[in-house]
Amino acid sequence: MSEPTLGVVAVGNALLDVLSNASEEFIAEQHAQFGMEKGSMTLIDEKRAVDLYAMMDAGIETSGGSAANTMAGFASCGGKGGFIGKIADDQLGKIFAHDIKTLGLTFETTPLAVGAPTGRCLVLITPDAQRTMNTFLGASVELSPNDIDEDLIAQAKITYLEGYLFDKEQAKSAFIAAAEAAHANGHRVALTLSDPFCVDRHRSDFLRLVENHVDILFANEDEIKSLFMQENFDDAVSAVSKNVEVAAITRSEKGAVIIAGDQRITVKAEPVETVVDTTGAGDQFAAGFLYGYTEGEDLATCGRYGAIAAAEVISHVGPRPLVRLADLLKEKKAA
Amino acid sequence: MSEPTLGVVAVGNALLDVLSNASEEFIAEQHAQFGMEKGSMTLIDEKRAVDLYAMMDAGIETSGGSAANTMAGFASCGGKGGFIGKIADDQLGKIFAHDIKTLGLTFETTPLAVGAPTGRCLVLITPDAQRTMNTFLGASVELSPNDIDEDLIAQAKITYLEGYLFDKEQAKSAFIAAAEAAHANGHRVALTLSDPFCVDRHRSDFLRLVENHVDILFANEDEIKSLFMQENFDDAVSAVSKNVEVAAITRSEKGAVIIAGDQRITVKAEPVETVVDTTGAGDQFAAGFLYGYTEGEDLATCGRYGAIAAAEVISHVGPRPLVRLADLLKEKKAA
Repeated sequence: MSEPTLGVVAVGNALLDVLSNASEEFIAEQHAQFGMEKGSMTLIDEKRAVDLYAMMDAGIETSGGSAANTMAGFASCGGKGGFIGKIADDQLGKIFAHDIKTLGLTFETTPLAVGAPTGRCLVLITPDAQRTMNTFLGASVELSPNDIDEDLIAQAKITYLEGYLFDKEQAKSAFIAAAEAAHANGHRVALTLSDPFCVDRHRSDFLRLVENHVDILFANEDEIKSLFMQENFDDAVSAVSKNVEVAAITRSEKGAVIIAGDQRITVKAEPVETVVDTTGAGDQFAAGFLYGYTEGEDLATCGRYGAIAAAEVISHVGPRPLVRLADLLKEKKAA
Repeated sequence: MSEPTLGVVAVGNALLDVLSNASEEFIAEQHAQFGMEKGSMTLIDEKRAVDLYAMMDAGIETSGGSAANTMAGFASCGGKGGFIGKIADDQLGKIFAHDIKTLGLTFETTPLAVGAPTGRCLVLITPDAQRTMNTFLGASVELSPNDIDEDLIAQAKITYLEGYLFDKEQAKSAFIAAAEAAHANGHRVALTLSDPFCVDRHRSDFLRLVENHVDILFANEDEIKSLFMQENFDDAVSAVSKNVEVAAITRSEKGAVIIAGDQRITVKAEPVETVVDTTGAGDQFAAGFLYGYTEGEDLATCGRYGAIAAAEVISHVGPRPLVRLADLLKEKKAA
């Protein structure tokens, strides 16, 4: 048992985002031909990634990945932490590594030397500001139990797992290894379910993970209903309360509910002048919540931090905060 | 002699831009230590590019390069054209190639197989919205006379040369080869001086090029004064009128002056609500001007197209237009 010096170490996909504009017609055509789901994330292979990229407009590239975005927010709040995720030894991998390190986060996962290139998420932005994501996971799903740096995990109060990584077997084993390392040190394990389709694909594995290894669960309404196969939100809430210590369920403009044993804490959504791009709201809610939690705040305050971080990210394009969240939290506290 | 089917083929640097925020203090420190010039472009080598990148904040990546940005604007106006520039056979090169091809431009220069990686421009944006550029030219200066596709040049009314490329000997030879190919087909050669420091570094070569090979010259006040070593703008104008058929001199908020023999045509700057980022103004002025010119418009109209394109690009962050310039030109014409 060691005294933790870091707040959160995340285990997630290491991806570069490629963003470009697309028409509704293009998405409809791609839906018909390839099952692209508007507003959702579709997994694609390397060939399809190359083909789709060739059809996309000129774009911009930026570091992404759900848990990596959360860690960007967590660091912006003032938290100290690390990231474990697999890049390849290529230029996109170097960009990902640069961006995550300049946030002050520890990132030491050995890049994949041979095989898939660094993963990427091709993001199509329609005129209604919705994002349709197409992810070629590339090197990121080659994350194996060997990549789980137990010394790093031993330093963190919370080990945070990204559900999206569950799309490959050895990543599942890596998750279990990470959870066991955290618990061996008496620390907490958090999980984000990431996506209802991802939950559908791996429900029984997710349930086993949640029951046996997870202390803090992040999900939205759809994901939690899907996980417990409950049509009614209250039934899903009651199921989750039996399985984890704390659950934080985000409900878009209705805010969030924090569940801890018999406690139900309602968190109001933070007002936003104009919602520009809702992507990343869940990731940033987790960032604010985790920051509050690792700073020893009560659950209502953790939820409020989450709501403030989520409101910041939906008020502009891009899944990472554009202002220092530490300043924003201080300002909102004073108000 | 062949009838041209394209408007403009540009010969320029193939660069990826890496943009991130920086403080005034950082720029001042880098100026003291490494001669970084705020608001200007400094050439850096690969080692320095790696070191500087490591010190920069998390950024976004986007295709850049002066003449490539002009061609993006030219295509956005509705023009047909091509680009000749050297990328490496790597991921950044693939991004550059993708972005330029999706603009509808022909781009077939063989990537550099061995040696330098694709060039990049590290752009530091200070809180006053100024951009300080640090360019590692990489593969782009490996452009050689062999890369000058004479068949492509034969198809274009104008071959447009980027002054920045003049920083290496074999690129100079490539320029001459391109100019000779254009003239052999009875077509025009245009040059942009790009940067007063670049003119300082290569004044006599630039003068020889302008005197012997250039029909249309783009420059700003500082560049034209530097080229002819005249302190007075009118003296520089009189010198340039003896050397080229047409010169378009941009003067920031004072608009532009078009010089053709004894003619002096004054072009007013297009009003802009808020100037957000002045980078790319010259490149987009050239884009609009070249579009008008290749469409057979008179010089005053060419200048007005240039002013409209420049106004669009300075009203937002980023050196390429965010709206279809063809629509903007039509709208402004109707008004």
